[in-house]
Amino acid sequence: MAGEDRVLAGGAKYIDFQTEPSRYRHWKLAVDGEIATLTMDVDETGGLFEGYQLKLNSYDLGVDIELADAVQRLRFEHPGVKVVVLRSGKNRVFCAGANIRMLAGATHAHKVNFCKFTNETRNGLEDSSANSGQRFITVVNGTAAGGGYELALATDHIILADDGAAAVALPELPLLAVLPGTGGLTRVVDKRKVRRDRADYFCTIEEGIKGKRAVQWRLVDEIVPNSKLEAKVSERARQFAAASKRDGNGSGISLTPLKRNFDDNGVRYGLVSVDIDRAQRIATISIKAPDAPPPNDIDGVITQGASFWPLQVARELDDAILHLRINELETAMLVFKSHGDRANVLACDALLEANKSHWLVNEIRQYWKRVLKRIDVTSRTLVTLIEPGSCFAGTLAELVFAADRSYMLIGQKQGDNRAPPAIELTPMNFGPYPMSHGLTRLQSRFQADVSDLDRAREKIGEALDAEQAEQLGLVTFALDDIDWDDEIRVFLEERTSFSPDGLTGMEANLRFVGPETMESKIFSRLTAWQNWIFQRPNAVGENGALLRYGTGQKPQFDMTRV
Amino acid sequence: MAGEDRVLAGGAKYIDFQTEPSRYRHWKLAVDGEIATLTMDVDETGGLFEGYQLKLNSYDLGVDIELADAVQRLRFEHPGVKVVVLRSGKNRVFCAGANIRMLAGATHAHKVNFCKFTNETRNGLEDSSANSGQRFITVVNGTAAGGGYELALATDHIILADDGAAAVALPELPLLAVLPGTGGLTRVVDKRKVRRDRADYFCTIEEGIKGKRAVQWRLVDEIVPNSKLEAKVSERARQFAAASKRDGNGSGISLTPLKRNFDDNGVRYGLVSVDIDRAQRIATISIKAPDAPPPNDIDGVITQGASFWPLQVARELDDAILHLRINELETAMLVFKSHGDRANVLACDALLEANKSHWLVNEIRQYWKRVLKRIDVTSRTLVTLIEPGSCFAGTLAELVFAADRSYMLIGQKQGDNRAPPAIELTPMNFGPYPMSHGLTRLQSRFQADVSDLDRAREKIGEALDAEQAEQLGLVTFALDDIDWDDEIRVFLEERTSFSPDGLTGMEANLRFVGPETMESKIFSRLTAWQNWIFQRPNAVGENGALLRYGTGQKPQFDMTRV
Repeated sequence: MAGEDRVLAGGAKYIDFQTEPSRYRHWKLAVDGEIATLTMDVDETGGLFEGYQLKLNSYDLGVDIELADAVQRLRFEHPGVKVVVLRSGKNRVFCAGANIRMLAGATHAHKVNFCKFTNETRNGLEDSSANSGQRFITVVNGTAAGGGYELALATDHIILADDGAAAVALPELPLLAVLPGTGGLTRVVDKRKVRRDRADYFCTIEEGIKGKRAVQWRLVDEIVPNSKLEAKVSERARQFAAASKRDGNGSGISLTPLKRNFDDNGVRYGLVSVDIDRAQRIATISIKAPDAPPPNDIDGVITQGASFWPLQVARELDDAILHLRINELETAMLVFKSHGDRANVLACDALLEANKSHWLVNEIRQYWKRVLKRIDVTSRTLVTLIEPGSCFAGTLAELVFAADRSYMLIGQKQGDNRAPPAIELTPMNFGPYPMSHGLTRLQSRFQADVSDLDRAREKIGEALDAEQAEQLGLVTFALDDIDWDDEIRVFLEERTSFSPDGLTGMEANLRFVGPETMESKIFSRLTAWQNWIFQRPNAVGENGALLRYGTGQKPQFDMTRV
Repeated sequence: MAGEDRVLAGGAKYIDFQTEPSRYRHWKLAVDGEIATLTMDVDETGGLFEGYQLKLNSYDLGVDIELADAVQRLRFEHPGVKVVVLRSGKNRVFCAGANIRMLAGATHAHKVNFCKFTNETRNGLEDSSANSGQRFITVVNGTAAGGGYELALATDHIILADDGAAAVALPELPLLAVLPGTGGLTRVVDKRKVRRDRADYFCTIEEGIKGKRAVQWRLVDEIVPNSKLEAKVSERARQFAAASKRDGNGSGISLTPLKRNFDDNGVRYGLVSVDIDRAQRIATISIKAPDAPPPNDIDGVITQGASFWPLQVARELDDAILHLRINELETAMLVFKSHGDRANVLACDALLEANKSHWLVNEIRQYWKRVLKRIDVTSRTLVTLIEPGSCFAGTLAELVFAADRSYMLIGQKQGDNRAPPAIELTPMNFGPYPMSHGLTRLQSRFQADVSDLDRAREKIGEALDAEQAEQLGLVTFALDDIDWDDEIRVFLEERTSFSPDGLTGMEANLRFVGPETMESKIFSRLTAWQNWIFQRPNAVGENGALLRYGTGQKPQFDMTRV
């Protein structure tokens, strides 16, 4: 499923995004007061698939899943950590980037999904720095090439050993005929603001840049002789810690293992369930409201920890999306549903709003933001159905606004005595969950007339029925019971008959109305071009650079410039 | 060269971007005082290539070349025209969009180049409206589908006949498995601000939307019954003319035919020459400075007309770039050179700055802006060499800043008694030539420290030698005579050995530092995704939608969602 001729290592049936430090094969996480050290020490034999070795601290998706887990745990389990030092456990090598053998043998879909996840993880580092006060320092003790340097680029401060050998490099183009596509091109010019012609030079040389020029060109922040490296790292870590606003005194909460049940037709979590109709190629994701109101105060939230409803749902939803993305490639569409007591959902939102300055609540809000962003860049048609018994309120209503289309039932269904469905807005729909391009989903929705946003805001706290919601522009279509089944059925059938590629391109364009940010540029300008290159014979053909790399044979290029 | 199994119609050897109204086969341009009418009446048998017919006002590149010419002439030859009414010469059909047979049989490179040029032409309509006060009104008298509606989207005001049949549609996705990629997706949500979920619906239906819903959803500006259509068009044209600030009283200047000489090794224009080294795959574009100072005043400029140096160079350079893009596909690199008296170039810039409120000078400045933008999105490596005898000053210096890299000689060359080269800045480098993303090239260049821009501005009017230029950050590398030949040779050889696709992707990312605008989003998010789709078997494969369209056979899709 995930590789052309590849099977997952160890007899695994699917790629699992859940892990924990005790199971890491490639990273070591050590916490010492305010400073954590995250050491990359990739196990060559620990590849996710069979058929390649992860030499020179090169990585595959499995390595990145551990990194994402570590970053997540640093936020929730280590509120006292203000600085994370990212470094290599290998001698004279920082990281050689994405493993080339892995890439050469991966399906197009796996390449694209791999890059998407690594991009999300690197954006996550920056999010942690910006919104949790956890600053990242990278210590480049040897070669940081390609994805290795791209990882460093996602951190706040890059220290390069000044030993005549350590260097940063983006050699993808000359070596592999692909782009530094995990944010590299974008971050070099947009984040580190390397002059574009220097960036051009840098991205076309294999050997990279070291020493003073690396600093002068803004590729790294400082160079330090090996003899003084450890002292400098400690000094910088202390400085960054002193400047951090992170205020997570006390202990964190434990991100306990998710309870999941995989079967042939989906996954069942505690609060989220995924039902896959393979014939229709539709996955229905249902979210259950809390059975009871949330705790009264923050101490109660801390006591609930990972089972606090908003956090548990976010974790389950995140895992479900990742699972579907990479393991269920023929699923055309995600249909979001919800059920349960809307009042309890609203009470959770109220708690999240009232305690937003508390570190844990902040983390939960930031996490929801990231999960929703992950949904935004998921290449599946997103549909939300608002039916009797549903509870799309506040945070959950973002799934209505994230959807490519939403349908809401007018009134009741015949033979169903549940009340007509309602949606309800909360302050969570008006700020804390911006999309990657910086606008909230409602801002994106109401570009034509900003007063529509004000009209919606005035309805905070009111249960809105289908006709009100449609009139306010909050749902795509309101349908009564007579039309509901037929219209939905026809829509689903038609949608799933379209070209998956065409839909991916269309949705990626229509979802991001208005401005672009560095983050959104990575998913649009950079990723779209990389995906194009990942289809071109010059990169992926039999005589292309990816397959020829390391064979001693030069790639043969069609020299047509397109 | 330009089609897989296609030959150019009429025995043509290359695609020619030069035309004039008397030669149009597909458009009629009629001027009546302040109002011009541009009527699309495509000659079915007038395709650019053999092998397809342009039915239902569908278009190919040849049709668009005429449109671009007409729009250009309206700006220069018709300063009195304040409103352009765009309409169809066919009964009950506005325009069926890009011809599908043409697309199905076109090479990947031709598809991409075709879309790029049509995008530039549509952006040009908007540029004319924004910067020349020529407003465009589209009269949709029947079906405006795909590229037909995308053309309407580029205009200021869309009037749809309310006759129960006339409709606007973007049926690319359901019919052809490709995107409405000539700005359609972007303009629907970013310009017309159609709500994204409605846009999703609109872009997945074949039949389009007509009548009141088209207005309510913001797809058109108004609907008018056929009986009142002509009166309404006249009324709107008069209103728009009255509101226009266009101030081009008197007669325009004639865009006389370019003098060109094609041979096997290039093209020679009056002031621009193109020398193609096919073995090296390099085209050198040399621009000659004026032999004499420009006229003293605007009357002199008008008298010179199309032979006024800045206008003549812009037209020749524009034609050269277009020619190389589409007819010389294996050319990897454009090397810009210049020669002649810098003082005369500077005097032209001074004239363009002193008279910028005059309509003709405004048009020349706007045109240079568009030519430079065309260079920015040209998928060839751009290099500028600044050697003795060169005259990169002001407007021409933009070619230094547009380049992916520039090299400047320190001092003189052995055996060459010409003075060391100098570059010189003018106010033209600080405003009038923004890139598509809204920044000037120097702003883009100096993102790291805005004071670099100020330092450069302070040097306006000073001749800067190589070391000064390098120190100011204006050139990539300054080299002395000892290194020059070897370094340039090695660079050119290495660069042309890289994968053309990788370079295209890299350059498209590094050139556009910072923000994106609607226009730049069209060339990044939208175009890059479309190019990806143009490589996918679901669209272009043997069983894909483009080849199967009209055969009665349904396309067969690989349902993997990437």
